[in-house]
Amino acid sequence: MATQTLAVWATNLEFDSLPASVVEAAVRSFHNWAGCAIGGSTHPATQIARKTLAAFAGSPTSTILGSVEKTDAQTAALINGISSHVYDYDDTHLATVIHPAGPVASALLAATQHDIAKVGSVDGKAFIVALVAGIEAACKVGLAVYPDHYDVGWHITGTAGSIGAAVAVAKILNLDVQAMQWAIGIAATQVTGLREQFGSMTKSFHPGRAAQNGLLAAMLASNGYDSSLASLEAKRGWANVVSASNRLETVLQGLGSTWETEQNTFKPFPCGIVIHPAIDGAIQIHNETQDQHQNIDAARIQSVHLTVHPLVLELTGKRNPKTGLEAKFSVYHGAAVGLLFGRAGLAQFTDDVATHPTVVHLRDKVDATSDASLRPDEARVRVDFGEGVASEKHVQHAVGSLEAPMTNEQLDAKFVEQCAPVLGEDIAKKSSDHCWLLRDVDDVGAFAFMALS
Amino acid sequence: MATQTLAVWATNLEFDSLPASVVEAAVRSFHNWAGCAIGGSTHPATQIARKTLAAFAGSPTSTILGSVEKTDAQTAALINGISSHVYDYDDTHLATVIHPAGPVASALLAATQHDIAKVGSVDGKAFIVALVAGIEAACKVGLAVYPDHYDVGWHITGTAGSIGAAVAVAKILNLDVQAMQWAIGIAATQVTGLREQFGSMTKSFHPGRAAQNGLLAAMLASNGYDSSLASLEAKRGWANVVSASNRLETVLQGLGSTWETEQNTFKPFPCGIVIHPAIDGAIQIHNETQDQHQNIDAARIQSVHLTVHPLVLELTGKRNPKTGLEAKFSVYHGAAVGLLFGRAGLAQFTDDVATHPTVVHLRDKVDATSDASLRPDEARVRVDFGEGVASEKHVQHAVGSLEAPMTNEQLDAKFVEQCAPVLGEDIAKKSSDHCWLLRDVDDVGAFAFMALS
Repeated sequence: MATQTLAVWATNLEFDSLPASVVEAAVRSFHNWAGCAIGGSTHPATQIARKTLAAFAGSPTSTILGSVEKTDAQTAALINGISSHVYDYDDTHLATVIHPAGPVASALLAATQHDIAKVGSVDGKAFIVALVAGIEAACKVGLAVYPDHYDVGWHITGTAGSIGAAVAVAKILNLDVQAMQWAIGIAATQVTGLREQFGSMTKSFHPGRAAQNGLLAAMLASNGYDSSLASLEAKRGWANVVSASNRLETVLQGLGSTWETEQNTFKPFPCGIVIHPAIDGAIQIHNETQDQHQNIDAARIQSVHLTVHPLVLELTGKRNPKTGLEAKFSVYHGAAVGLLFGRAGLAQFTDDVATHPTVVHLRDKVDATSDASLRPDEARVRVDFGEGVASEKHVQHAVGSLEAPMTNEQLDAKFVEQCAPVLGEDIAKKSSDHCWLLRDVDDVGAFAFMALS
Repeated sequence: MATQTLAVWATNLEFDSLPASVVEAAVRSFHNWAGCAIGGSTHPATQIARKTLAAFAGSPTSTILGSVEKTDAQTAALINGISSHVYDYDDTHLATVIHPAGPVASALLAATQHDIAKVGSVDGKAFIVALVAGIEAACKVGLAVYPDHYDVGWHITGTAGSIGAAVAVAKILNLDVQAMQWAIGIAATQVTGLREQFGSMTKSFHPGRAAQNGLLAAMLASNGYDSSLASLEAKRGWANVVSASNRLETVLQGLGSTWETEQNTFKPFPCGIVIHPAIDGAIQIHNETQDQHQNIDAARIQSVHLTVHPLVLELTGKRNPKTGLEAKFSVYHGAAVGLLFGRAGLAQFTDDVATHPTVVHLRDKVDATSDASLRPDEARVRVDFGEGVASEKHVQHAVGSLEAPMTNEQLDAKFVEQCAPVLGEDIAKKSSDHCWLLRDVDDVGAFAFMALS
């Protein structure tokens, strides 16, 4: 029944049944996704994908975020999905480590702009309903197979994301329950994303292809292309094939009573999320120690000691990162730049900063100890300045966690940080402001082309 | 090393190193694929896919088989892959149950026609080398994970087919070893095909999407989009994620010494291959029993008993098929039409025949017993005519098996059976004749547009 349960729920979902907190969370997810996709639009991976796809692209209906160019909806879904993930700066549903907005919003916006002829212009409320349906679908099916599915090696953002993208597009197309089930089935059969690709461009291909998988699935289903009606739960269906165990029926019973969209979080720092508590503590110490020029005297620092959850050293223990990409997987680097600059944004994870002598010198003074009694979002940071002077911070919940979420102002600053190099500072600020108004937009397709490119 | 082993082998493969028997087998695979794709071009699944994709399609470079229309290469790969499989009439590599030509040839032809500007026109020999590289790649990686991978529920034609398609296109693009590894990686991460979709249109979507996956992977890699260089063998790479066990290193050592292309077989009947021995026996009994009008008196038949390999009832045990598609998964239907008509072609797997009272009446008299001592291509068929009269056939190796392969003349007849309703009888015969000349064609792209549409 799982496939039908999901399809019935999504088909019936209405804006007025969404709690205000879910609408707010959906708008925050959209805002963060748009900033990441614009910011990632100039990355080499995105550029190669654009160049490659241009040779096949069709009728230019849909916005490429960060560009005034349009392309066909399938191509736009793929490219925007790639660019939204390419800096590892996108949203995180912590219970599943899914980055849901990449696949779901990329597919949904592309479809919305493509299908104006069929469904008319889509307003903000209808868009938000479909976005929520897609995020809920991705995260619920993800929850049902987590952690076995992730542990064996699937990049769950791609695998569950395809299903979420299909549900979102099927919703905006007003498909009936049966066609919604077909869309879920066609998406489920395209299981995209191996964790072996982490560290290569193909990692960001996963949410892109997932967006395209879901879009294609819903479009095929809308024209009568059928699939199994039990694709999620059947013996040789999705959950059983991609995971050693699952809780599909139980989890899907929670649709509409617990909202995964509200559980979506946003990264303050473009690096592995387990480093965030240490960076948070380092920035707090920077802020208390800085002089009137907002600098701290790194030469005074004798040593830095981090106490962190064991996952931190397992996932992000790179001692001597040589590139910006490697630095994203170094807790030592994160703490060093947090102390030095009071921030750890895109500018602190470049090749130049990773190899800058001042950074390297301070990074070499950082050591770290694992402590299994800490939570993953908790850390202790202690800085010794010599002569008995020290500063210590205990970060209970890192900024960006569920308990200490990014404020809308922080999301604004993050948006502008990412988008100013692409759009210019003024337009970046305006785009950020516009995204908060999503709910009241009359025509999301036109809005996106005006505000996000 | 597996990914590198495959990439090095494929990169170095040359026409002159192919045994004549492999070239002959490749041409037979191409011929059978072309006939199936033309024959399947008017099927509703293909038509829906064409209609859906037309809305996104780009520059029309590549042939849609069975149609004078062209479309962009990605769309052509998807559509031709669907149409080649939609009647379950395509080739079968028996050791893995992969249908390799669908994904591989669909991607390769589309890419060949797309990339004339880049690589110049492709002649028959170059095309055959790439086709063999792709078929070998798909079947070898399939062998490495078979049967665990298939048993858990993957449609191996889609999953291994994506990798084969990528290798074929990468070969025609003359990618170097590293780019070939990237292409393999991007293809491997798109794991397409759940067996739950058997019996729906989405089954034929699998080889289509696999063709497109591989084409996109190779095109991205050709522009520098990178992936892991160890995507097949890494801990969280393809083989370990999609199968409980694998023999990747061992199997890939056999590249170039054992040729899977030679092991490819061609179906005499458009239905699940495990039914073929029972149909073969039923047709033999028909031929011995028919009157001068080539009819047999079904009313005389008291009962029909089949003894079959256990897979037959597991895969094709549908007792009361209501549609032509369901009838393909009914050994009872296969035996009944074999007895009644002396044939089991496309005309015997229509909705009308599946529900025709005479067929249903005879089908109800058929029962079947599993016998694990039989081979999958073996069956016993016993027909009781009452009054102590019975006829029994022991089929040692069904027609179309490796031991009793379809002759080129039988492949000609099969081609015309499929293509005459689409192209007309005369053109169908000419197309069939042309396909045998593949090796000596100067420009496969132009040839395909002339001969296959």
